[in-house]
Amino acid sequence: MTDTDAQNPPDLPEEHFDSVYGLQVVDASPKSVTAVVPVGPKVQQPFGIVHGGVYCSIAESLASIGTWLGVRDEGMIAMGVSNQTSFLRPISSGEIHASASPCHTGRSTWVWDVEMRDDEGRLCAVSRMTIAVRPIPNS
Amino acid sequence: MTDTDAQNPPDLPEEHFDSVYGLQVVDASPKSVTAVVPVGPKVQQPFGIVHGGVYCSIAESLASIGTWLGVRDEGMIAMGVSNQTSFLRPISSGEIHASASPCHTGRSTWVWDVEMRDDEGRLCAVSRMTIAVRPIPNS
Amino acid sequence: MTDTDAQNPPDLPEEHFDSVYGLQVVDASPKSVTAVVPVGPKVQQPFGIVHGGVYCSIAESLASIGTWLGVRDEGMIAMGVSNQTSFLRPISSGEIHASASPCHTGRSTWVWDVEMRDDEGRLCAVSRMTIAVRPIPNS
Amino acid sequence: MTDTDAQNPPDLPEEHFDSVYGLQVVDASPKSVTAVVPVGPKVQQPFGIVHGGVYCSIAESLASIGTWLGVRDEGMIAMGVSNQTSFLRPISSGEIHASASPCHTGRSTWVWDVEMRDDEGRLCAVSRMTIAVRPIPNS
Repeated sequence: MTDTDAQNPPDLPEEHFDSVYGLQVVDASPKSVTAVVPVGPKVQQPFGIVHGGVYCSIAESLASIGTWLGVRDEGMIAMGVSNQTSFLRPISSGEIHASASPCHTGRSTWVWDVEMRDDEGRLCAVSRMTIAVRPIPNS
Repeated sequence: MTDTDAQNPPDLPEEHFDSVYGLQVVDASPKSVTAVVPVGPKVQQPFGIVHGGVYCSIAESLASIGTWLGVRDEGMIAMGVSNQTSFLRPISSGEIHASASPCHTGRSTWVWDVEMRDDEGRLCAVSRMTIAVRPIPNS
Repeated sequence: MTDTDAQNPPDLPEEHFDSVYGLQVVDASPKSVTAVVPVGPKVQQPFGIVHGGVYCSIAESLASIGTWLGVRDEGMIAMGVSNQTSFLRPISSGEIHASASPCHTGRSTWVWDVEMRDDEGRLCAVSRMTIAVRPIPNS
Repeated sequence: MTDTDAQNPPDLPEEHFDSVYGLQVVDASPKSVTAVVPVGPKVQQPFGIVHGGVYCSIAESLASIGTWLGVRDEGMIAMGVSNQTSFLRPISSGEIHASASPCHTGRSTWVWDVEMRDDEGRLCAVSRMTIAVRPIPNS
């Protein structure tokens, strides 16, 4: 699958939060999801560095996409339970390079580690995401 | 002070992450910060519910603004250290109503609890924010 | 029920982790659990203050006990998913006074806030516990 | 240095929390700390599996020891700020094998990842520890 499939399933709106702040999924599978986000005013806080919420948002998206890819064939969905993000070093230009890999893929819960780096490869934020796997609500 | 001061200090760009996703600070002091965010496509994930990263982002902003208001007169700045957000109940319409209050206001660290509710007042997400207080970098 | 029931169900060993570090449950229900832990060498790290892991352990126990009391009549068990504890102020003597209350009691997940205070009532540690509710494994 | 130095500095009490639940530090440096904890009644909850607080406690100790080894020569101490532990798989016998490595070693904050495995090498718990580096209180 391509990142376009992951982000824009048919019949869903084109504008959504990930498109608004500029998430570009590079590669996505249940074992690894990578993405970049260009740094500019729309992801910065007023003092010019990337807003902490952007790192949390990237982590949330990558872990959700990866889990969904791993469970959708069983009729399950992925729902965020908790997001713990630590901020290590500010980024003020270039791109945010994110990569996510699962450290646990259980029947009811997946746990992911997400690393976010700057253009020099320095680790700038790390997230631990807990994603619940649930049956699709009867609809 | 008003929310405009908090969000748009003089000489800083008008477009920034909080303005992009629609944060509206209602009231801000070192003891309490409240805000609303209207729910629409730009804060939703493709399936129509509010993206988990939005709750994290709101919490990050409120705790940072409140800490900054409490320490700026001493020449200090506020920097996010860690953001732990739990997602309790999805929101798909109306507004997100957020309120933040500090549970610790130390010399080098402030810790905040942030609650986010829907229009019916139901608790939908909770965050624990850890903010470092640091001297302004010599510039 | 009494704390003795919660801690020592019949046919279970008397020595267990909570007894080893000295947890004394004062009151327990699905809506609130309170406990005290006397401060002495066995909960201190070598430098004389309470070990951070003790606060985490208290939070884990209180949230697990409270959830279990709320779901056991439906044949469910409580299992810790994640524990986020922030350390605000050291304690070196007296007692740790802990109180836990749920901020979310869902079908598959309960989320608890736990506060730990010293003898003067000062907030010294706070925990956010996520507990999964699962059917009893077939036995 | 040996684990004995790390755990029992001169003039400090022999009984302390780590000794009570049975932490055995195998190797310790600012870049890596490893330890084992034998599983028995004193680390189990009443239902026979390792108490979640034990994983938190191990993580807390390993990250604190490693940070302290990295900063003590500069007259600094290490203090836990926050502990986020996720529980992936229960352990009921054998040993807990823990290894900690820093993902950030800043001037005022160190962040550690801690992994805990069972005898078969399966990942059972993961922790993200945030440790503050502070000057020794007036001495």
